Amino acid sequence: MLMSYFADIPSIAFEGTESRNPLAYRFYDADREVLGKSMRDHLRWAVCYWHTFAWPGHDIFGAGVFERPWKPGEPVTAEHAQIKLDAAFDMFAKLGAPFYCFHDVDAMADHDDTTSYSRELDAIVGKMEGKIAETGVNLLWGTANLFSHPRYAAGAATNPDPDVFAWAAHQVRSMLEATNHLGGENYVLWGGREGYDTILNTNLGHELDQLGRFMNMVVEHKHKIGFDGPILIEPKPHEPTKHQYDRDTATVYGFLKRYGLEDEVKVNIEANHATLAGNSFEHEIATANALGIMGSIDINRGDPQNGWDTDQFPNNVPDLTPVLYYIIQGGGFKTGGFNFDAKVRRQSVDAEDLFHAHIGGVDVLSRALLAAASIIEEGQLDQFVSDRYSGWNEAFGQDVLSGKITLEQAANHAVENNLQPSVRSGRQEFLENLISRHS
Amino acid sequence: MLMSYFADIPSIAFEGTESRNPLAYRFYDADREVLGKSMRDHLRWAVCYWHTFAWPGHDIFGAGVFERPWKPGEPVTAEHAQIKLDAAFDMFAKLGAPFYCFHDVDAMADHDDTTSYSRELDAIVGKMEGKIAETGVNLLWGTANLFSHPRYAAGAATNPDPDVFAWAAHQVRSMLEATNHLGGENYVLWGGREGYDTILNTNLGHELDQLGRFMNMVVEHKHKIGFDGPILIEPKPHEPTKHQYDRDTATVYGFLKRYGLEDEVKVNIEANHATLAGNSFEHEIATANALGIMGSIDINRGDPQNGWDTDQFPNNVPDLTPVLYYIIQGGGFKTGGFNFDAKVRRQSVDAEDLFHAHIGGVDVLSRALLAAASIIEEGQLDQFVSDRYSGWNEAFGQDVLSGKITLEQAANHAVENNLQPSVRSGRQEFLENLISRHS
Amino acid sequence: MLMSYFADIPSIAFEGTESRNPLAYRFYDADREVLGKSMRDHLRWAVCYWHTFAWPGHDIFGAGVFERPWKPGEPVTAEHAQIKLDAAFDMFAKLGAPFYCFHDVDAMADHDDTTSYSRELDAIVGKMEGKIAETGVNLLWGTANLFSHPRYAAGAATNPDPDVFAWAAHQVRSMLEATNHLGGENYVLWGGREGYDTILNTNLGHELDQLGRFMNMVVEHKHKIGFDGPILIEPKPHEPTKHQYDRDTATVYGFLKRYGLEDEVKVNIEANHATLAGNSFEHEIATANALGIMGSIDINRGDPQNGWDTDQFPNNVPDLTPVLYYIIQGGGFKTGGFNFDAKVRRQSVDAEDLFHAHIGGVDVLSRALLAAASIIEEGQLDQFVSDRYSGWNEAFGQDVLSGKITLEQAANHAVENNLQPSVRSGRQEFLENLISRHS
Amino acid sequence: MLMSYFADIPSIAFEGTESRNPLAYRFYDADREVLGKSMRDHLRWAVCYWHTFAWPGHDIFGAGVFERPWKPGEPVTAEHAQIKLDAAFDMFAKLGAPFYCFHDVDAMADHDDTTSYSRELDAIVGKMEGKIAETGVNLLWGTANLFSHPRYAAGAATNPDPDVFAWAAHQVRSMLEATNHLGGENYVLWGGREGYDTILNTNLGHELDQLGRFMNMVVEHKHKIGFDGPILIEPKPHEPTKHQYDRDTATVYGFLKRYGLEDEVKVNIEANHATLAGNSFEHEIATANALGIMGSIDINRGDPQNGWDTDQFPNNVPDLTPVLYYIIQGGGFKTGGFNFDAKVRRQSVDAEDLFHAHIGGVDVLSRALLAAASIIEEGQLDQFVSDRYSGWNEAFGQDVLSGKITLEQAANHAVENNLQPSVRSGRQEFLENLISRHS
Repeated sequence: MLMSYFADIPSIAFEGTESRNPLAYRFYDADREVLGKSMRDHLRWAVCYWHTFAWPGHDIFGAGVFERPWKPGEPVTAEHAQIKLDAAFDMFAKLGAPFYCFHDVDAMADHDDTTSYSRELDAIVGKMEGKIAETGVNLLWGTANLFSHPRYAAGAATNPDPDVFAWAAHQVRSMLEATNHLGGENYVLWGGREGYDTILNTNLGHELDQLGRFMNMVVEHKHKIGFDGPILIEPKPHEPTKHQYDRDTATVYGFLKRYGLEDEVKVNIEANHATLAGNSFEHEIATANALGIMGSIDINRGDPQNGWDTDQFPNNVPDLTPVLYYIIQGGGFKTGGFNFDAKVRRQSVDAEDLFHAHIGGVDVLSRALLAAASIIEEGQLDQFVSDRYSGWNEAFGQDVLSGKITLEQAANHAVENNLQPSVRSGRQEFLENLISRHS
Repeated sequence: MLMSYFADIPSIAFEGTESRNPLAYRFYDADREVLGKSMRDHLRWAVCYWHTFAWPGHDIFGAGVFERPWKPGEPVTAEHAQIKLDAAFDMFAKLGAPFYCFHDVDAMADHDDTTSYSRELDAIVGKMEGKIAETGVNLLWGTANLFSHPRYAAGAATNPDPDVFAWAAHQVRSMLEATNHLGGENYVLWGGREGYDTILNTNLGHELDQLGRFMNMVVEHKHKIGFDGPILIEPKPHEPTKHQYDRDTATVYGFLKRYGLEDEVKVNIEANHATLAGNSFEHEIATANALGIMGSIDINRGDPQNGWDTDQFPNNVPDLTPVLYYIIQGGGFKTGGFNFDAKVRRQSVDAEDLFHAHIGGVDVLSRALLAAASIIEEGQLDQFVSDRYSGWNEAFGQDVLSGKITLEQAANHAVENNLQPSVRSGRQEFLENLISRHS
Repeated sequence: MLMSYFADIPSIAFEGTESRNPLAYRFYDADREVLGKSMRDHLRWAVCYWHTFAWPGHDIFGAGVFERPWKPGEPVTAEHAQIKLDAAFDMFAKLGAPFYCFHDVDAMADHDDTTSYSRELDAIVGKMEGKIAETGVNLLWGTANLFSHPRYAAGAATNPDPDVFAWAAHQVRSMLEATNHLGGENYVLWGGREGYDTILNTNLGHELDQLGRFMNMVVEHKHKIGFDGPILIEPKPHEPTKHQYDRDTATVYGFLKRYGLEDEVKVNIEANHATLAGNSFEHEIATANALGIMGSIDINRGDPQNGWDTDQFPNNVPDLTPVLYYIIQGGGFKTGGFNFDAKVRRQSVDAEDLFHAHIGGVDVLSRALLAAASIIEEGQLDQFVSDRYSGWNEAFGQDVLSGKITLEQAANHAVENNLQPSVRSGRQEFLENLISRHS
Repeated sequence: MLMSYFADIPSIAFEGTESRNPLAYRFYDADREVLGKSMRDHLRWAVCYWHTFAWPGHDIFGAGVFERPWKPGEPVTAEHAQIKLDAAFDMFAKLGAPFYCFHDVDAMADHDDTTSYSRELDAIVGKMEGKIAETGVNLLWGTANLFSHPRYAAGAATNPDPDVFAWAAHQVRSMLEATNHLGGENYVLWGGREGYDTILNTNLGHELDQLGRFMNMVVEHKHKIGFDGPILIEPKPHEPTKHQYDRDTATVYGFLKRYGLEDEVKVNIEANHATLAGNSFEHEIATANALGIMGSIDINRGDPQNGWDTDQFPNNVPDLTPVLYYIIQGGGFKTGGFNFDAKVRRQSVDAEDLFHAHIGGVDVLSRALLAAASIIEEGQLDQFVSDRYSGWNEAFGQDVLSGKITLEQAANHAVENNLQPSVRSGRQEFLENLISRHS
């Protein structure tokens, strides 16, 4: 093994809030107990392979700018795959990351034929297995990249060409088995091109049926091989497509219901995808909780003035406090976690920038966790909401909810009691102050 | 009956494309047969009562500016309700509108108590019945306004206060029965405040259950009274709420599936709501077709630079051509139609402006209908799409779709045939030119 | 004087960060010295009359819901004007607000004729004078409402009808003189309808010339009457218009340069207007600093998922920390301040909600002020930026900036030195962590 | 010369509106006279080199998909540069394009050192000169790519490193001279990275001064070498930057005024940049007309649901009719023209797709031109607008505009005449119908 790219970076330790050392955690104290669980076990955070190790720092207007020894952006050689793998696990370990995530082709050379693909995948999975054993950094989830290779230009499972569907089946089968082999805790599908560039050439119903069939095949295979983590769909409204079918959590729920998958598949919610879809991040989590499909999180942030997926690191504690609150209210992560699907800005070209980004992100999550825990311990917010709906605990409300009452009976209830309900304050500003007080 | 407000406006006739008379139709020739049906029967268009007769021309920054004899914006007296009703049906008749739509309180005084409400509603429904008989202008759909009265500040069916739920039940029951009585062809629910202003004070799952229960009660009542039109939900993402639960067609579908309503309830899609939700108008229709819940249309347009519901009249034929195409491809309207949920701009203060707006809108729809019919008769677009998916008609594709093949078998299919699918052109620009050629 | 509407609300005191009393300041300690100035003098905050006292809690989909003794939303009687005035100054005093702001017609009845208008204005200004003397709450700025009355439907200074221009001149003259009389520190013009609903009926160049002339007339009058505060334009991109001419700070600057006003007029930047225009709030302030036209702030926030002016109270310290930082870097407020151009949500119907909103807003500003001061005292951020541009202090850079070098010479400099500049890290994540550390 | 990539594509002829040949013009009849000028001379359209010949069909989520003999996306060899040049001019000639546009590095290999750069540029310019002479296809404008090479990651003229400024000077000097040498009619600067990724590391005023100085140097050099076309700035609000300084036409105007450039520099307005900035396309043109800085157009369109620069080909005649109307009203293009800064969709992989795209675009522009000419010949729209402002031709209006009247006098005019102006209809729907009738 060569000298690591990160040789000059120390292991990152918790130093407390007074520390001004930019290469230390100020809030993330992994073993600190919060609401009965360590911070590590609350956050279950992961570093992603793609943005951090496979992206060369290009954008649609400019070339790659990152000078890494493993040459991101160039075709991956066996040598570079090894250097990258070493650097990656060195970084995970120095950060004290409990988890990482990867797509097949983040870590290996991509190929046009299935045989070469499988050979490469087997090779890198074998090496990763050793790294996991060596470092104790585990796989939060694996996934197959079904959007970068030209064959996927018109989609993967939703491609008009069934040959592409078959190739996608090969990739997902392979990565699902690899994820299982590596002890991964979830398997994610992001359908980056499962949508359309123009509706004019698209049979929308046909494509939905293709996707429904594909997802069912994946679920069946999961059971067959004994993978016991959940299958997760990651919603996104568009980009690179003009329209992507799984635009947000509510849309995914409808899709799952349509194809009988609602008990098998959950969502991996990304902050930036939520906001691109016109939803707040916390809305997506509360919705997934309500619909029973909350799985995992891709933590990042978008730019409110830029209409594309900027995948920035989170940096705002009050914004994330409700997010942590709803995650805990929903029971906390089971197999899920916070995957940093975030990339440093293109001008952040140095090794240390990768550390600043993750350290900042982990600390912001930690502060939001502490704030949410404080709100929960205080109990005032939860109580307020319960009280607000307390009328529904009385006879009429209970009869409505249990289906005992017809529209006519409900209408008569209003007439007979000459109901003239008045407006009660929703106390929005008071509640916003409450969040602010804790965060 | 007083002299109508529209006394100076002539009846609007079809004069053909060479006409420069702004008070004539240039394309809408009601009895002209297109694809085997009259234009009237294709479009089934309606004038809405609210924007045209109840809105005083105010906005959030300014007072009402419309000087109408029925005093919109002021509390409705019996006298003004009558003048308004006369003017409305005079306008419908002069336009040759086959249909109109209204909310209960568009046409009558609103009240705090159910008794007064019911008395007013009965009175105006009785008068409307006469007008319908007299003019032959029919009710496309009725609806109850569950968002303007202060009692609904925190929602109607989703209100934390079950008394408000009961009031809403009274209103919907009343208007559903009124709609049935008047021979209305559909009943619409727009849940303008079925959502939240802040998620912090909201129990999202509880509110969804309330709404699910309400919708089921409405459906049961519809059957009980023998109303045979469909119940329609009108999706909107937000405004006035921060978030509305039925944000778009796919979201509504998930809701219907969750509460067992997918065979009973359809959608009333509004153009401006579609675009506010981040979807194209045609996407919403194609989605409703694919999911089997296409009902009716609120035809208008938004402003692409303004992020609120501008409810402008449609004015762009190429934009609407795919919309008409998908409506016809979906079988055309059954009970649905095009309701002009559109308002003249605040500076369009004259009686004639209401006519310019509707004439322009009807003509634009007519041109888009002719364009869509021309595309369908030519057959090239439909053929292109069929050909694009033709691979799925072969053995492997059919086996996938019929569920005969596992993920493993599909993967093996790729491996054994060494599939290396290449990109086939999606011909987007060619297809856009095709639309342009017809529109 | 009747019992005040706010009789049950105590005066709001500073109680420190440990306080859980929602009717207390936790951070705003008015006399605390920060960077050599009291917090009061840093923030110079104001309560606005319109949202807090004149808005009835209506929105475009619903009626007013606020039950106040002064009947907002109804035509203003002399009695109600008095009750409102008493309540307003009672609230200002209880909050310890140093300032307030108002439009003419917020406080009085509006009229169609100039005589009645002037009579009403004189009456209320006389009473306000007494209130100011009595409470010590001063006028941050006055303004005339040139957008609510029907006469302004097509604009005020930019109206196609010069009679409307004359009316606007009367209103602005009157309120400028009233502001001067009351000791107001600035005079603001928000051109809510200085734009267009459709470009089709608009002579854009003509309207800009009208507006340029109007602004010059205002400036001349200011000098004539000896008003020594600045004239401020408040940029907004649209709403209620489709397009407003003074869309953002950079646009206003171009307008001022075009009409020779750049030394006379500054900007009153509103947070929510900035984001509606596609700019970050801090960008607008940094731009105004760079262009020398920074005046005052309308402090509020928009909703990132809602495309209209929601005018919510600020609640996010990290978001506001750069804002405070740039304000202080620009020299701090001279005559300007933070005016809470913010409204409680429609469901916040109680008197106490108005207090929660302002207390939360003042505390959030206070925390952001403390964070910004901490950053400034540390000096690291400022040093980083200076260092980043330090190359420009050397010979070539200085020669370029001073205009000594031609394009050819600059090009030759690159050739002769065979310059191959490499990318230096912009350290964005490091700097975001720095902000986070202080806020 | 090898067989051209476009060997199978015929020359594109005008065949009239009845033609269904997709490889023919239906409206663009180059020599047809419209308002006294040929369609060719009205439109002055150009094909761009970058999207059509240098883009490999990649996006940020996927690899290049276009299989062209000149290997776009790979480092440019002399051989590939030649094949590309031959193909490009073959395509221009077959389309009958009067013009083309290019960046330096679209056509040649990019380099890290100035010497190699200049050698490559000289070589390709020499060859282009021959092609221009041979085909008669002229250069509408040249430009230097100051955004793709890593050196420009932090901007070109606004880079914190003056060495980068010098490199940019070398490139712009070289391309300005090349453009002059090739008979180009304009020189364009698109400042793709003249902005910031984060305001935190940015000295905004310093960067504006750098840019102001740079533009002045370019203007001086233009005069020195005798280039008589205008210098054009192309506004864009953001992407790839978070914020770009020249966000729209009004912002550019303010910048030009600040640095004394308003008589020297004009704007090259791009449709998709206009809409990303929150302006309508026609607004930008009308604004440039009003401010006297209208130069040229980059014609394309964005997707109203996608928040990035999609650069699609135009396809909507009613949308473009006001655009053509305002261009003609502004006097028509002098040196400017319509450059198709548009790219086929990634799935449009075939040679013929490039032709479909341009043919469709040219025909849509032609139809919009015919519609605008028809509106102008009719005169009704122009007359309506004149009439709307006719009050300003009377004494009071003229006195206001000529500066004879003070604010006080204007106010007194309102008082003395007891002005109570009423709202006059803006006739928006009537005018929209008028546009529709012609388009």
